[in-house]
Amino acid sequence: MVKVIVIGSGNVAQHLITAFQNAEKNESGISLIQVFARKRESLAALIPIQKVTNQFSELLEADLYIIAVSDDAIESVSSELLFKNRLVAHTSGSVPLTLLNNNNRKAVFYPLQSFTKGAAVDFKTIPLCLEAENSIDFQMLSKVGKLISDHATAINSQQRKALHVAAVFANNFSNHLYQIANDICKENQVPFSILKPLIQETAKKIVAIDPEQAQTGPAKRNDQITIDAHEAFIKDDNQLKIYKLLTQSIQHNGKKL
Amino acid sequence: MVKVIVIGSGNVAQHLITAFQNAEKNESGISLIQVFARKRESLAALIPIQKVTNQFSELLEADLYIIAVSDDAIESVSSELLFKNRLVAHTSGSVPLTLLNNNNRKAVFYPLQSFTKGAAVDFKTIPLCLEAENSIDFQMLSKVGKLISDHATAINSQQRKALHVAAVFANNFSNHLYQIANDICKENQVPFSILKPLIQETAKKIVAIDPEQAQTGPAKRNDQITIDAHEAFIKDDNQLKIYKLLTQSIQHNGKKL
Repeated sequence: MVKVIVIGSGNVAQHLITAFQNAEKNESGISLIQVFARKRESLAALIPIQKVTNQFSELLEADLYIIAVSDDAIESVSSELLFKNRLVAHTSGSVPLTLLNNNNRKAVFYPLQSFTKGAAVDFKTIPLCLEAENSIDFQMLSKVGKLISDHATAINSQQRKALHVAAVFANNFSNHLYQIANDICKENQVPFSILKPLIQETAKKIVAIDPEQAQTGPAKRNDQITIDAHEAFIKDDNQLKIYKLLTQSIQHNGKKL
Repeated sequence: MVKVIVIGSGNVAQHLITAFQNAEKNESGISLIQVFARKRESLAALIPIQKVTNQFSELLEADLYIIAVSDDAIESVSSELLFKNRLVAHTSGSVPLTLLNNNNRKAVFYPLQSFTKGAAVDFKTIPLCLEAENSIDFQMLSKVGKLISDHATAINSQQRKALHVAAVFANNFSNHLYQIANDICKENQVPFSILKPLIQETAKKIVAIDPEQAQTGPAKRNDQITIDAHEAFIKDDNQLKIYKLLTQSIQHNGKKL
């Protein structure tokens, strides 16, 4: 039986707790033996309260401790652990493995998904980026990872950094462009819902084809008449700046000008 | 029986031809009686060749003529029609209704989707933006539209212009951000496929929640340490410009600075 402890009570921690509890039900040989939360009652709906501790001194012995806290708390939380030479992972996309305290063996257990509180996700579909200091630790990490995700992959700190930057472009920034589209629709009394099928289709396309091949639109066609008309239409300075920069970038194929 | 003729042989024309042929099969009271294509043989795989003409003088009488050609050819093609006072629509998101020749009654029949040649689409799911000069013409347009799409909506030229600009942000620009993410992955030997579930999830989220509510990431959290680390990581000037501008825009909630 592989014994896991989750440290944290936020978004990622809660999704991990649910995923491990589901894995337990499937008798997969894993056990979430304990959770650490400063406010024990914050997890009352999720897990039997007697499994939750708020004392580092009460932490049981486990094969893997997963610190699922905010980036800036990882270092201090890892230094508060009172045991030594156990396997301790954080769940951050942007924090290096080396930030973890030297008292224990370091690892990363990073689920690449943006979790929304309360919104159920099928953890099995989420890519899990794993990193450890040696192959024995990696095997343990991988064993645990594969029990909750179908996409557990070895990713080192440098690759993880790249992934995190890439995810900001592909996801955070895309979502912001959806917001601008929504703003433009609102200003012009057009229901944003008309755009939703196209947004889904655009995202779906790149599962099968390279985004470079999938590119369409006036910038790609070098349709200057439409580009001029759009720039004349856009009244907001910030929107106009973004329109011009991304149009230019498409015309230069995303490469340095 | 409503008689429709499609003029054009490109991407949109081909998808319309397929959609109308499917509607015919369902005995919906619509008939695609003819197609105009300069090169008749280009449609040989799609429709019986005797239904295709390359002579404007041979065009039959129909209830609706749909000009599905590139934006810059709409005006000239509409002026080549030899009949008068019939209902003629174009399929463009960015061309005003008024650009059509005065000889006939003008309309717009704009499917809001980016079609990829050869890739099958369920036309029923595609939003169809309709505009006519009077309510009788609009009724005919709407009747035809509803036979091939479950989302036929009245959209005037000003709204259509807004939609087209919004679609460039939400789709063309998002796809370009996917490409940049792909480039960053490639440069760092990370498989882009790891990001694909997150991309789908980001697009799916905004079906249910407002993009403003769905926004996540370092810019939204004002996490300056991560933003600085990302900016230090990005080596390409163009990527860095985009990162900075969109980060700033998220921090100002997409409003003018």
